[in-house]
Amino acid sequence: MNADVNTGRDHHGDLLDRVFLTRVLEPGDKAGGRWVREYGAEEVARRLRRGGRALPGVSDQRWAGLCARAGRAAPHRDLAAAREAGARFLCPGDAEWPGQLDDLGDARPLGLWVRGRSGLRMWALRSVAVVGARACTEYGAHMAVTLAAGLAERGWVVVSGGAYGIDGAAHRGALGAGGATVAVLACGVDRPYPRGHTELITRIARQGLVVGELPPGEHPTPSRFVLRNRVIAALTRGTVVVEAAYRSGSLVTARAAQRLGRHTMGVPGPVTSGLSAGVHELLRGEATLVTDAAEVVELVGDMGELAPDRRGPVLPRDLLDRRARQVLAALPGARAAAAGEIARHALTTEDDAVARLYELRALGYVERHGDGWKLTRQAMVSVRDHRNPC
Amino acid sequence: MNADVNTGRDHHGDLLDRVFLTRVLEPGDKAGGRWVREYGAEEVARRLRRGGRALPGVSDQRWAGLCARAGRAAPHRDLAAAREAGARFLCPGDAEWPGQLDDLGDARPLGLWVRGRSGLRMWALRSVAVVGARACTEYGAHMAVTLAAGLAERGWVVVSGGAYGIDGAAHRGALGAGGATVAVLACGVDRPYPRGHTELITRIARQGLVVGELPPGEHPTPSRFVLRNRVIAALTRGTVVVEAAYRSGSLVTARAAQRLGRHTMGVPGPVTSGLSAGVHELLRGEATLVTDAAEVVELVGDMGELAPDRRGPVLPRDLLDRRARQVLAALPGARAAAAGEIARHALTTEDDAVARLYELRALGYVERHGDGWKLTRQAMVSVRDHRNPC
Repeated sequence: MNADVNTGRDHHGDLLDRVFLTRVLEPGDKAGGRWVREYGAEEVARRLRRGGRALPGVSDQRWAGLCARAGRAAPHRDLAAAREAGARFLCPGDAEWPGQLDDLGDARPLGLWVRGRSGLRMWALRSVAVVGARACTEYGAHMAVTLAAGLAERGWVVVSGGAYGIDGAAHRGALGAGGATVAVLACGVDRPYPRGHTELITRIARQGLVVGELPPGEHPTPSRFVLRNRVIAALTRGTVVVEAAYRSGSLVTARAAQRLGRHTMGVPGPVTSGLSAGVHELLRGEATLVTDAAEVVELVGDMGELAPDRRGPVLPRDLLDRRARQVLAALPGARAAAAGEIARHALTTEDDAVARLYELRALGYVERHGDGWKLTRQAMVSVRDHRNPC
Repeated sequence: MNADVNTGRDHHGDLLDRVFLTRVLEPGDKAGGRWVREYGAEEVARRLRRGGRALPGVSDQRWAGLCARAGRAAPHRDLAAAREAGARFLCPGDAEWPGQLDDLGDARPLGLWVRGRSGLRMWALRSVAVVGARACTEYGAHMAVTLAAGLAERGWVVVSGGAYGIDGAAHRGALGAGGATVAVLACGVDRPYPRGHTELITRIARQGLVVGELPPGEHPTPSRFVLRNRVIAALTRGTVVVEAAYRSGSLVTARAAQRLGRHTMGVPGPVTSGLSAGVHELLRGEATLVTDAAEVVELVGDMGELAPDRRGPVLPRDLLDRRARQVLAALPGARAAAAGEIARHALTTEDDAVARLYELRALGYVERHGDGWKLTRQAMVSVRDHRNPC
């Protein structure tokens, strides 16, 4: 009895149950994931609320703890708080759900809280994680900025953890290049952490996406940081570690990526720097040494069936959501247009049009042209075909 | 008709013919190598002296050039000049000839000029090349010194090209650790190049070995540098590149090592340093990233049948030359002894004993103990067994 939205059960009910569960179960709780897979979110939520006999795989004590949390959960209030912060909640199977998270099996997030206007699913399909040490060196920060900017310039989405050091430098590099970036937080998406990155994370929510498993108001904990890393690894096509000491959390992300069959990459540094020691250890294993964005794209850009022509659109147009299709259709056939003009033709606001245009750029449909936007050569063929189906 | 010493032909004659050929043929001349393989050194030397019809594989013009050189060659004079400089000449098949050079096929050196007291064959069996840029950075020099010292401390012989920069730092690191080092020159071994390394190369000849294919007095040329690199690659179990720009000569050595089935290693550095760019390119291929001597030894120390126990002697004692066996036998059973005491028991000079002791150390038989020398645990068993054969 699987209560996934795809099986036809009322979406609103499933959504409320999953919002409830993100408040009760910790991220990556495999026992919880198995319950949901076996009994459905609705039934697991009912049992937790009722507080009867423990479900399999946990001690009575832990079950009692979960039931106590369940007593305090208020999914309607959480959804309202999220709305207040400009966040929505995605369930597995939703149109915007990034299917590659399913590779996590029972550790798959029960749902994702998302701030930002772009579609997570499509961004994730063309994304790379750039992660590393909090207390990075100037060299590491320089490399993270350069790499992220180069990825953004090539239409790739830069995913990181919003932390100080390498993470922040990666986000800033992508933003600075006018590109797309996703911060995956280990706390509620309404609650920027670290505090010193409030401004940065707000900017990411405006120009990109801020994503997390934890409901509004939740704090990060050491284990939540570690478990957040599996989401970064699963969401992206590959993980680049820029600087990391031995036993660094970034190495957890890299190893998770490896286990998930994603590309794992490392930026080398001086052997004399302890902050490169973890990266070098990784590079002595299965990871690939990369020195610039071109080398990263060379590796992760090999998308097999999804993108036979690497310069072409990643997805068939039919998989674009309605509003992205409207913006795409609003672009003139051969010349560039300003975002305002495109917005007017797409019957949307300029802000929304810009967000969609970045999304379409990440997918290879449009490109910047001076201050304006134009269709890529590949997209032109595709759009023309669509406009004249005969 | 192969005139190798092994086939029983008079050694002195073969030696003179090969000395003659090193004056006439350039290092790595494959056509010349094929002639010697097919007709023997004696016959090739005769034809070059006679100046008749060209042997196969060269133009008449080139053949005429070789014959003109042959007219000026004076092998007895070359041998005398070498003796003067403390150098000997090794032929393929000699007891001291490093057999792994045969992997070079027709590009195998016709012979090797060697300065220094130790046995090249045994040293080469436990050697690693440490090479890199001439105009290296302080970081590169530091890494070369540290790596070479670490290799020397582990009883490994450090081979390099005697050049400024990384090469010099590698030699100095090995010497500074009281270890063994071999300089392979692209000129006559009596003619230290670069001039600024005269003192260093003289010191290497005293404590280690100075080796080259070219007869006394010959100058280095760009092509001789490149071809010298194949000897470094073939002589050693693996090549470590410390710093190298794109298209650096050190990459030639590394690629030659790769083709010969030797281990190829690289020391990473900052991506922002052009002098690490060549190394990183190598590391993106088949080369292994190494950060210290332990990691190098882990790779090259896997010697298969030669050394089932990596801490034990590399070679059966029967392969040691007579004088090395005498020095080994002169070491006391369980305690350390000074070089002078060992020399008296071995009926040799202290200088010679020290050279043999370094050789024996490189092979895992003896180790330093304060100012003295003692048998390694492995050697103790072996020597005891030998002394009491019943």
